[in-house]
Amino acid sequence: MNKKSPIWIYDTTLRDGSQGEGISLSLDDKLKIARKLDRMGIPFIEGGWPGANPKDVQFFWKLQEEPLQNSEVVAFCSTRRPNVAAAKDKMLQAILAAGTRWVTIFGKSWDLHVSETLKTSLEENLAMIRDTIEYLQSQGRKVIYDAEHWFDGYKRNSEYALMTLKTALDAGAEWLVFCDTNGGTLPHEISQIVAETIAAIPELKTRDTSKIGIHTHDDAGTAVANAIAAVMSGASMVQGTINGYGERCGNANLCTLIPNLQLKLGYQCLGQEELSQLSPSSRLISEIVNLAPNDHAPFVGRSAFAHKAGVHVSAVTKNPLTYEHIQPELIGNQRRIVISDQSGLSNVLHYAAKFGINLSKQDVTCRQILDKLKTLENEGYQFEAAEASFELLMRSILKPNKQLFHLQGFQVHCNIHQEIDNLGSKALATIKVEVDGKKILEVAEGNGPVAALDSALRKALVEFYPEIADFHLADYKVRILDGGAGTAAKTRVLVESGNGVERWTTIGVSANILDASYQAVVEGMEYGLLLQATSQKKASIIN
Amino acid sequence: MNKKSPIWIYDTTLRDGSQGEGISLSLDDKLKIARKLDRMGIPFIEGGWPGANPKDVQFFWKLQEEPLQNSEVVAFCSTRRPNVAAAKDKMLQAILAAGTRWVTIFGKSWDLHVSETLKTSLEENLAMIRDTIEYLQSQGRKVIYDAEHWFDGYKRNSEYALMTLKTALDAGAEWLVFCDTNGGTLPHEISQIVAETIAAIPELKTRDTSKIGIHTHDDAGTAVANAIAAVMSGASMVQGTINGYGERCGNANLCTLIPNLQLKLGYQCLGQEELSQLSPSSRLISEIVNLAPNDHAPFVGRSAFAHKAGVHVSAVTKNPLTYEHIQPELIGNQRRIVISDQSGLSNVLHYAAKFGINLSKQDVTCRQILDKLKTLENEGYQFEAAEASFELLMRSILKPNKQLFHLQGFQVHCNIHQEIDNLGSKALATIKVEVDGKKILEVAEGNGPVAALDSALRKALVEFYPEIADFHLADYKVRILDGGAGTAAKTRVLVESGNGVERWTTIGVSANILDASYQAVVEGMEYGLLLQATSQKKASIIN
Repeated sequence: MNKKSPIWIYDTTLRDGSQGEGISLSLDDKLKIARKLDRMGIPFIEGGWPGANPKDVQFFWKLQEEPLQNSEVVAFCSTRRPNVAAAKDKMLQAILAAGTRWVTIFGKSWDLHVSETLKTSLEENLAMIRDTIEYLQSQGRKVIYDAEHWFDGYKRNSEYALMTLKTALDAGAEWLVFCDTNGGTLPHEISQIVAETIAAIPELKTRDTSKIGIHTHDDAGTAVANAIAAVMSGASMVQGTINGYGERCGNANLCTLIPNLQLKLGYQCLGQEELSQLSPSSRLISEIVNLAPNDHAPFVGRSAFAHKAGVHVSAVTKNPLTYEHIQPELIGNQRRIVISDQSGLSNVLHYAAKFGINLSKQDVTCRQILDKLKTLENEGYQFEAAEASFELLMRSILKPNKQLFHLQGFQVHCNIHQEIDNLGSKALATIKVEVDGKKILEVAEGNGPVAALDSALRKALVEFYPEIADFHLADYKVRILDGGAGTAAKTRVLVESGNGVERWTTIGVSANILDASYQAVVEGMEYGLLLQATSQKKASIIN
Repeated sequence: MNKKSPIWIYDTTLRDGSQGEGISLSLDDKLKIARKLDRMGIPFIEGGWPGANPKDVQFFWKLQEEPLQNSEVVAFCSTRRPNVAAAKDKMLQAILAAGTRWVTIFGKSWDLHVSETLKTSLEENLAMIRDTIEYLQSQGRKVIYDAEHWFDGYKRNSEYALMTLKTALDAGAEWLVFCDTNGGTLPHEISQIVAETIAAIPELKTRDTSKIGIHTHDDAGTAVANAIAAVMSGASMVQGTINGYGERCGNANLCTLIPNLQLKLGYQCLGQEELSQLSPSSRLISEIVNLAPNDHAPFVGRSAFAHKAGVHVSAVTKNPLTYEHIQPELIGNQRRIVISDQSGLSNVLHYAAKFGINLSKQDVTCRQILDKLKTLENEGYQFEAAEASFELLMRSILKPNKQLFHLQGFQVHCNIHQEIDNLGSKALATIKVEVDGKKILEVAEGNGPVAALDSALRKALVEFYPEIADFHLADYKVRILDGGAGTAAKTRVLVESGNGVERWTTIGVSANILDASYQAVVEGMEYGLLLQATSQKKASIIN
């Protein structure tokens, strides 16, 4: 395939993506996602609209304190309000305060929106575009201009739409981005309108590099095809979100677009190494957003290279090309043969190698691990996001360890007296464990039952395992399996623990949320101790 | 828009759709779906592969006993096996026994598959196609020919691919269907290859009507765009599945394709009345298949016309065209305004109207409601998925209600003795409430603490509010806010309740998961009683 010009990926998960129904990102979530995108080498990350909400203001401050390594973080804003000088517009002051090198300004291309939404004149709208861009430039900013409703505007009044675009270009915008804001445009219209626009504005062709972008939504189910159509007609920036998050039906899914552009059409988007991290990155971000990953997502979904038993399986085993459109490894995904021991075993071997465990297909234990894995997965365990638990499981089958301690029982007690105590609700946990033949009874309190249980367990164990004092709970996630069963449904808890250097995730499943939490918390401690032991062993070998 | 030639919709939910991971249809499920598709007026319904599994055999028998009203049901099968006479092939006998007028036969277009999967010669493959079609025709069947891997085969060896197609045509196939079996082809390749194929086989152009079909998969995220590209290049049959179910990333989603073809491109697919049933049909079929509906699905998803951002809300209220690509009513969907911290007074007013509450922008209470909303959202409440709680909130500000009961306190007790009780973990809840001056103390048990709490509360209240006995918990969801705070983080609980007729969702937020669950459960009961009271009032006005 020919090497074509690079495509600049512009991620708007943190701004447009967060408009998706069901998504509510904390400041901490936003920072985690930004750092992940930075590691993926995404050139532009739209961080938010600093004037519109306080969380976004804080987000940009945090990035001023500790900047990203690879990506440009971009602040987003509308053009100035009608009949107000740009320098007096509070939103524009807020975007400057965000302290980014790049800013994205969206303006109206569609005359209907100017009169009905902005309630101003067509001339004033042009002035708003010009003033805003010129003012931000005068303050040392590089401007990306998002032409909102480009395609609808062009279809209704192409003459005026072109005037808005030329205004933005003349005012000094570095990039002009065609936005299909309502998401209803089809690919052949995108191709045609992008080509016509480029033909109508001669300056667009004479610039050093094409600086045209595309921003699409999935309301017609064609967001990805639309972005591709625009790229094939001359766009070289693609805006989208991870996993296609976004308002209504979502934005163009970058996890689909990037492999299409890079692997099928030969445009350079990400480094090869970064591309091979696409599937785990997609899943990590769905964990942060706390939405179940879409198993059927193109390229990165868990089922994207899954083959059900039968004709496909035997063919794909003989020659993957027969039923696979690309190699799953290129984007960090893997082939899965559903209901087939063959693939199960290779999974086990794959993880054994990863954990540094010596295991071969012929070992009886390999089959034992697979059987146990299948039983647990049937009960609702899912180890993809809880590798630490899977490693513990594998090690316990290979060499049944002496247990850290023996649980004799725990009680959790929550007491909510609305009348008496208005300060908050308290929980109390009592735990009885046996360690090295000694019986320990401990009690602790917390804001909620899980915090109390975690505290009690630490108090009971720290005398025997002082390292536990260094461990902390970094994250705690709950998902109800089979929600239809109401409060009697099974609960899956993921606990992320850390020791200041490393982080690991463990899992618990039970009809009782406290029991599930207990399992995950205990495995978190066990794994932390295992890590400590391994690094001490390594250190003693080196010294 | 010009009236163009009709497009024949061919549904394969029951065959290709059922290959999707996570889908397992009973005979009864299949019949329900077939009857629904029949009522929708889908011209062709592919029912299954009668030789491949006994369930499909029975399915066709059932339809022989009680035929469909509008649709042609189609039986599916491969060409005869290599080196066996068609009349002696068991699969072909099974497809005849299915007793359908129409049959679909798939054959190999790609030379690689002939040699690697079938392990036969290129000549024998041509004979298999010819014999099979001629034999089925001789038995009075009309044949649709699915050219498997058409695009991959054509790219690798167009000469041979064209020979297979011409063979099917000469043997008497009524329709020739181009299948992108691996789903990796992009729209511009589809356009080009369909056009080239039609140009290469003159008979295709001279037939009375174009009898070319397209069958696409979503592995590149472009199944819908690919089908549209084929239609624009001459295809007039479109194969797909309801909700895009299917192996790996699924098939082309008919719920997206049909509105695109009919409303945007002017091709006739369904009657107007049937089209307006598309959204409820999509949801009904997801219920039968027992998969959660995709809220973000184009056209038919619950969020497809949901507006969240403040700017969008005020504009869409003024003129829906500004942020909606089609009228949601055309496909039986509806506009929704989502409550979130990104919105303002216009949201509050929209909801007041929806709840039947008289409120205007000038009312002081309108501002009070907004302030309360923002405070609560800042604490982690999110009302977009909990409209019932928002209605209760609004009503309580407008007219402080007498509370249903007065909570004096509750205790929850979980006891996990690993040594003693291996049967599972039990929880106990004790609750003390005051209702109508009477103090009630109740206790109940459950699998987990929330189930126990819900039970205890019902036991305490049912004497005073007997309607509560009809309410049930339909769903229970948990989200940890600010997961970084570990087990001390705030918990948001959503509870969906039902009374057999309606469903409603309420919310609770607290650092203590049990407290959050309690809030949501109580509001669920309050809202259920409010509903009951409203419908009684309505009934008494009518009588």
